[in-house]
Amino acid sequence: MTVRLIESLATTEPLADVFSDASVLRAMLAFEAALARVEARLNIIPEDAARAIAEAAVPESFDAAAIAREAARTATPGVPFLKALVEQTRRRSPAATGFVHWGATSQDLCDTALVLLLGKAQPLLESDLERLRKALRRLSQQHRSTVMLSRTLLQAAPPTTFGLKAAGWLGAVQRSRKQLRRAFQEGLVAQLGGASGTVAALGDQGLQVGQALAGELKLGYPEAPWHAHRDRLAVLVCACGVVVGTLGKIARDISLLTQNEVGEAAEGSENRGGSSTMPHKHNPVGCALTLAAASRVPALVSSFLSGMVQEHERGLGSLQAEWSIVCGVIQATGMAGASMADVAEGLTIDRSRMSSNLDATQGVIFAERAVMLLSPTLGRDFAQKTLEEATRRCRQEKRRLRDVLAEMKEVTGRLEPAVLHELESPEQYLGAAGEFQDRLLAAADPEDGGHGHKKE
Amino acid sequence: MTVRLIESLATTEPLADVFSDASVLRAMLAFEAALARVEARLNIIPEDAARAIAEAAVPESFDAAAIAREAARTATPGVPFLKALVEQTRRRSPAATGFVHWGATSQDLCDTALVLLLGKAQPLLESDLERLRKALRRLSQQHRSTVMLSRTLLQAAPPTTFGLKAAGWLGAVQRSRKQLRRAFQEGLVAQLGGASGTVAALGDQGLQVGQALAGELKLGYPEAPWHAHRDRLAVLVCACGVVVGTLGKIARDISLLTQNEVGEAAEGSENRGGSSTMPHKHNPVGCALTLAAASRVPALVSSFLSGMVQEHERGLGSLQAEWSIVCGVIQATGMAGASMADVAEGLTIDRSRMSSNLDATQGVIFAERAVMLLSPTLGRDFAQKTLEEATRRCRQEKRRLRDVLAEMKEVTGRLEPAVLHELESPEQYLGAAGEFQDRLLAAADPEDGGHGHKKE
Amino acid sequence: MTVRLIESLATTEPLADVFSDASVLRAMLAFEAALARVEARLNIIPEDAARAIAEAAVPESFDAAAIAREAARTATPGVPFLKALVEQTRRRSPAATGFVHWGATSQDLCDTALVLLLGKAQPLLESDLERLRKALRRLSQQHRSTVMLSRTLLQAAPPTTFGLKAAGWLGAVQRSRKQLRRAFQEGLVAQLGGASGTVAALGDQGLQVGQALAGELKLGYPEAPWHAHRDRLAVLVCACGVVVGTLGKIARDISLLTQNEVGEAAEGSENRGGSSTMPHKHNPVGCALTLAAASRVPALVSSFLSGMVQEHERGLGSLQAEWSIVCGVIQATGMAGASMADVAEGLTIDRSRMSSNLDATQGVIFAERAVMLLSPTLGRDFAQKTLEEATRRCRQEKRRLRDVLAEMKEVTGRLEPAVLHELESPEQYLGAAGEFQDRLLAAADPEDGGHGHKKE
Amino acid sequence: MTVRLIESLATTEPLADVFSDASVLRAMLAFEAALARVEARLNIIPEDAARAIAEAAVPESFDAAAIAREAARTATPGVPFLKALVEQTRRRSPAATGFVHWGATSQDLCDTALVLLLGKAQPLLESDLERLRKALRRLSQQHRSTVMLSRTLLQAAPPTTFGLKAAGWLGAVQRSRKQLRRAFQEGLVAQLGGASGTVAALGDQGLQVGQALAGELKLGYPEAPWHAHRDRLAVLVCACGVVVGTLGKIARDISLLTQNEVGEAAEGSENRGGSSTMPHKHNPVGCALTLAAASRVPALVSSFLSGMVQEHERGLGSLQAEWSIVCGVIQATGMAGASMADVAEGLTIDRSRMSSNLDATQGVIFAERAVMLLSPTLGRDFAQKTLEEATRRCRQEKRRLRDVLAEMKEVTGRLEPAVLHELESPEQYLGAAGEFQDRLLAAADPEDGGHGHKKE
Repeated sequence: MTVRLIESLATTEPLADVFSDASVLRAMLAFEAALARVEARLNIIPEDAARAIAEAAVPESFDAAAIAREAARTATPGVPFLKALVEQTRRRSPAATGFVHWGATSQDLCDTALVLLLGKAQPLLESDLERLRKALRRLSQQHRSTVMLSRTLLQAAPPTTFGLKAAGWLGAVQRSRKQLRRAFQEGLVAQLGGASGTVAALGDQGLQVGQALAGELKLGYPEAPWHAHRDRLAVLVCACGVVVGTLGKIARDISLLTQNEVGEAAEGSENRGGSSTMPHKHNPVGCALTLAAASRVPALVSSFLSGMVQEHERGLGSLQAEWSIVCGVIQATGMAGASMADVAEGLTIDRSRMSSNLDATQGVIFAERAVMLLSPTLGRDFAQKTLEEATRRCRQEKRRLRDVLAEMKEVTGRLEPAVLHELESPEQYLGAAGEFQDRLLAAADPEDGGHGHKKE
Repeated sequence: MTVRLIESLATTEPLADVFSDASVLRAMLAFEAALARVEARLNIIPEDAARAIAEAAVPESFDAAAIAREAARTATPGVPFLKALVEQTRRRSPAATGFVHWGATSQDLCDTALVLLLGKAQPLLESDLERLRKALRRLSQQHRSTVMLSRTLLQAAPPTTFGLKAAGWLGAVQRSRKQLRRAFQEGLVAQLGGASGTVAALGDQGLQVGQALAGELKLGYPEAPWHAHRDRLAVLVCACGVVVGTLGKIARDISLLTQNEVGEAAEGSENRGGSSTMPHKHNPVGCALTLAAASRVPALVSSFLSGMVQEHERGLGSLQAEWSIVCGVIQATGMAGASMADVAEGLTIDRSRMSSNLDATQGVIFAERAVMLLSPTLGRDFAQKTLEEATRRCRQEKRRLRDVLAEMKEVTGRLEPAVLHELESPEQYLGAAGEFQDRLLAAADPEDGGHGHKKE
Repeated sequence: MTVRLIESLATTEPLADVFSDASVLRAMLAFEAALARVEARLNIIPEDAARAIAEAAVPESFDAAAIAREAARTATPGVPFLKALVEQTRRRSPAATGFVHWGATSQDLCDTALVLLLGKAQPLLESDLERLRKALRRLSQQHRSTVMLSRTLLQAAPPTTFGLKAAGWLGAVQRSRKQLRRAFQEGLVAQLGGASGTVAALGDQGLQVGQALAGELKLGYPEAPWHAHRDRLAVLVCACGVVVGTLGKIARDISLLTQNEVGEAAEGSENRGGSSTMPHKHNPVGCALTLAAASRVPALVSSFLSGMVQEHERGLGSLQAEWSIVCGVIQATGMAGASMADVAEGLTIDRSRMSSNLDATQGVIFAERAVMLLSPTLGRDFAQKTLEEATRRCRQEKRRLRDVLAEMKEVTGRLEPAVLHELESPEQYLGAAGEFQDRLLAAADPEDGGHGHKKE
Repeated sequence: MTVRLIESLATTEPLADVFSDASVLRAMLAFEAALARVEARLNIIPEDAARAIAEAAVPESFDAAAIAREAARTATPGVPFLKALVEQTRRRSPAATGFVHWGATSQDLCDTALVLLLGKAQPLLESDLERLRKALRRLSQQHRSTVMLSRTLLQAAPPTTFGLKAAGWLGAVQRSRKQLRRAFQEGLVAQLGGASGTVAALGDQGLQVGQALAGELKLGYPEAPWHAHRDRLAVLVCACGVVVGTLGKIARDISLLTQNEVGEAAEGSENRGGSSTMPHKHNPVGCALTLAAASRVPALVSSFLSGMVQEHERGLGSLQAEWSIVCGVIQATGMAGASMADVAEGLTIDRSRMSSNLDATQGVIFAERAVMLLSPTLGRDFAQKTLEEATRRCRQEKRRLRDVLAEMKEVTGRLEPAVLHELESPEQYLGAAGEFQDRLLAAADPEDGGHGHKKE
């Protein structure tokens, strides 16, 4: 368990583990062991040396704290880590120490280690987003006919369905997730460039070693080292930004629905959301954690992007800021994904509050509808003015729109009583809500056409 | 010409035109005219009304400043614009005024207008990036054998070639550009959701109208309205961020090469870069403008991403900030693209300074190479220590590495004189530079294998 | 009127005027005319030349658009502006042209012009914040006894008063404003450093000219030129960030209060907030515009701060980004200030909704109070558990807390009927609300002790 | 030692300790113990209970990891922490458990704990900035007459002195530090608002308890609780942003001076700056670490500012992001301060390289000076053109400016040979450099007039 108190709301446990000292050490050691193996296979270093290095590459033998403490002296954890690895190797084979890290530079080590950590993070992110997908799809399907207010600029607007609302969330999640997958796929590439990006220390075998190393670590192999070209990581960080933005939007919506005065939704899980002092409280904590992530990630994206301006063959400054930024982005994205998955899975919807909130608007949200109905005979301008007057009366006299309209001479005779009667029926003013919902579900689950027949 | 003085370094002229009042009006009018045409075709509004609206949709009849002044009253330019359009339509046909904007909401208008402006911006961005691609490829090919220092953390490191350096730039440009193209392709979609995203005012024809409208405007049609789901725009804004980061990296590199003490490159164009007071100055202005963009865009990306958290069916706050942000991002991206295309096309490379800067390091940059040569016999640790000592002497005594090494007893007998003699030959320590360059060029121009045989 | 359509929600008219081409030209000309005047007075340039320059310095003679167009060639509008000024001066006195901009560099011109524009912006910002102060103070005083729900994590919590809430807003506004004033005071300093910050071209009169120039322009004179030290501007930009954050907080609160389901507040002005399609709508547009500013400004602050890293005696890149950033920050701050002043002046408070929303919680918000009352006899843990059970019953059975408690055996006998009866009286559970309000009002208006006796 | 590997370049050890689990626990316990003490003193809770709570408040008894793990369930570490404190208290006195956290809310605990941590961080930041101040002052004084190139847009410009350059750095450091101090002074205030900011659970003693608590913890006491008004913290975070921006500017300058081709400065410390593969490397690691901070902090500031928009009496989302942001900002600021103090203390200046770099410009940097000398007789325009021609020849023919000028007929007779001879003397073209330096030193050390007579 490696979550720190000061950042206890900033990461999930599994992602804290991914970036824990032990895990970072493992990734660094995996790079060095694989490099040695590959170089031995290609007869660049002795087989024995590779074996000794691999045997030395046991995280438990390393003092992460000491390495961390030394890192500032060289502006990279790579140098003290390698010193420690050489020491560990020496215990097994003094002759092998000369072949540790053969031909590589510390950025090869650090970048590949970071990529390996990202590779470990990806399935964690994916599995929460998959939970979220399923939960949103289920919510959308269950509430295909659940009518509710839409709200624009936080004000009541004509009705929609919760099915469409959830489908809209789902669509955004799936689109954002597609970007994220693509970014992982293109970004998980090994780094091996040596001191200046030419792997010159490996003579004419640099490319071969790089390809074999990437294969060994199950990473992609790029056209060339990318020491100072950080666009692939930037795309990944941006994709996280978009995912978190989407999750934040859902969290904002749900948290607004959970307000006591609205009461249309509640986070479900029983043991969460309590207060230190208020026994009655049931806070939307999953939304809070997601919005916390959404409040931090965009700026981290910004840092990464402005840090792309790196000097020549190895940057000075923003390169050295990357580990911290990327770790922060991934952990926050994971926290948001896990929290919203929990929220969506446990979400309670109160159909009757949705209905009564609609009703409480006294029909004024159908003013647009009335304008559309009156425009052909009254003219749009006059229809608009008539409805502005009518809705004003509704507010002042606390009466329903249809009742007010029924008394207005401009309306009488122009709208049939039956039409007036149905004016405020939300089910009859949903337009393409159902079609949009179907299209969103279908696009989100191409295989099953969005109709849920696919087994999960 | 619509560049304002206060933002004269923040946009190109063509992109200032894209976001000028006239252009914004044109885009808004295009939406309303197309909507009317489509609705007439589908027998939703009278043919005559559509014609009157189309005739009224002439930018010259509108007072953009008055509309802008009124926009704040409703937190959208859509409302005063529509009022003006109704007035213009009235002059042609009072009966038609009721059919202006039929079934749509002001966000449909504003979002689609923004997308249309983005569609106008795309080819401008593309054409400068294409100029840049060609220029970088040419530079890379011309300088395949131009040896130069690599520099890590701004310090001299083993040699590379300018060919590889330019190919690295090219690779990053092309990768970033691919993201941008994809983002435009996925992002240029029409918006038609009506008051609450269901197009309810259009009854059962909402989907049909939306599809026809998108076709009419040559835009994509999404699964559903996206009033409060801004992920597509976010992806586009992020892609701009990555492009600008990449361009900024190139600008940083080139500006460092143009320092008087380095002198390896110069921005070429004769009439640029002067100073108000220093006649000798030849400032790297194209790099400066690009770096200015790289200093602004990341934060704009951040604003957009944090603004994704929009409430329910229409956001309150960050939605109203988008036009300004997107305009700023696109203009800055264009400024960076145009500036770096100019810089790359006019770039002067000074091979002799590259060579003399290499030489001025007195061979110490080959210390790594010497370590690799000595390690098998001396052991890595001792070889490393030996070279640290040797390079210290080089600095103190201002002598070349090979001369110092030739006198050190640890080295004598372990390195043949011929090997020592060639130690400092940069051409012989380039590793996979050529292969990496080829791979980058090939990936950047898949069709011609990077060998330039393709006609342009 | 210089608001552009694409940025029509991003600035007020007066601040658009401050940064208009005409105003920027005026500021640039003011610098050059003052410099010439001062240099003539100190016998550095001929009196006639200064007069000719001053006469040439008429904004109307200049083509701002042409200058803007040329600015990119030198990465500063200063160079083409000076070329134009020389031409205008030549028409009056060819001999004077040589004395234009004598001893200065283009950054002296551009920085001082920016500072002059900031000086014009300050009273505009101040006057809106002063309007806001008065309105908030009035609201706070009027609603000293207006009881309402407090809300934490958007959930109902024990009562507060609207008087305290408004006083809290006021306190934050006044603290933020103090920072802003201080920043203006320290930041409005002239720039005169010449080519490299030593004013060497003015021989031993550089300091004297700088001091006189600052006096002439009514600006402060710093210890030394600040071409590459941007901390004063950074502090000012940050202060705007804090002001906007504070205004955004108020806007968020008010917009939440205006939700139909809450209905405790409404933006008042009659002619604002309409929709293009929904006649019933009364959108909180002032809050929307403020939140739009709050969504943009933080990232602009970030840009400015990261742009502080400027090279040597004049930066390359982030310097060239500053005008655009600073203009954006100031205009957004002004928009937020003006909007919230309007909102506060016109705010309608619905006491009865405040009261009924309180009541609708069925007393569960007093659960904390009950715990405090029961703890001495029941023990805190058990009291807490009892209240959790009680509030659960309230929710399920839709009953009031006191009624549920009255039936629970753990409570009977421990709480007097009179105490139970008063349990849910909000007026009796306001703690230090009144004292806090008084302290906030007093601190916000030190002169009148917050009691409003001071004439305004 | 609590630095984590993944963030080993993001914090100093002492600041890692400040935000370590043990330290966070200590701060939280300090709040609860002080609250209990104060409440006992005011006869609100029994003396015995307060004693038991104080005895339970021993960090070692708490499992920080378990608390961190639970924090997400309530979106605050406060709730699980209090549960643990109640358990620890129960072991000493079951009767006391009911008085733990009496009348407070978890945000009171968390906010005050954060403020206590900030109070611990302040002297750490201060002491490094004080080291930096002394070192910069010494450098400035030592190099009052050390002439060097100034550089604008990275191009050689007329001379300056290293004394002025260092004084400029010093001035900015001291101005920024003043902001930081002020922000700490105004920001270190206790929080005690209870559930909804009225401390209602403490009846009419809320204010008294709050004041006593603040006194007990040696913190300021604000006008009112600030649960949702984060302006004081925002001002502090901004001040860190300005400090880091200033430090980044110095780091950028120094790192540019350390380039091999420039060679005017070097980071001094012997055991730092090595490379994993290049024995000759002496990287400017202190600058790198500072620039890494400068690349991260601005965006964190932006996050904090946009997070100021917090809902009603306790925010949902951005509040929960604050600990992580503030910790990141403070640690990065400390890393930058410590690194630049090290750099400044160990900085090696190479006067001869400064001189030879000046010389290598062949005098063209004095072109401005020649223009000033020739303008009175040649006219400014013609003088400017003449010098543009002359500098062009210098570049092409690799000759010195004075030699070229001596041959130009426009110049002959207009400039005395003695004047021409002295034209390129940098010592004679320093303008007010000395005066500016003195003014900066005096302002930075008001007590000793900047002349260093003050004992330290």
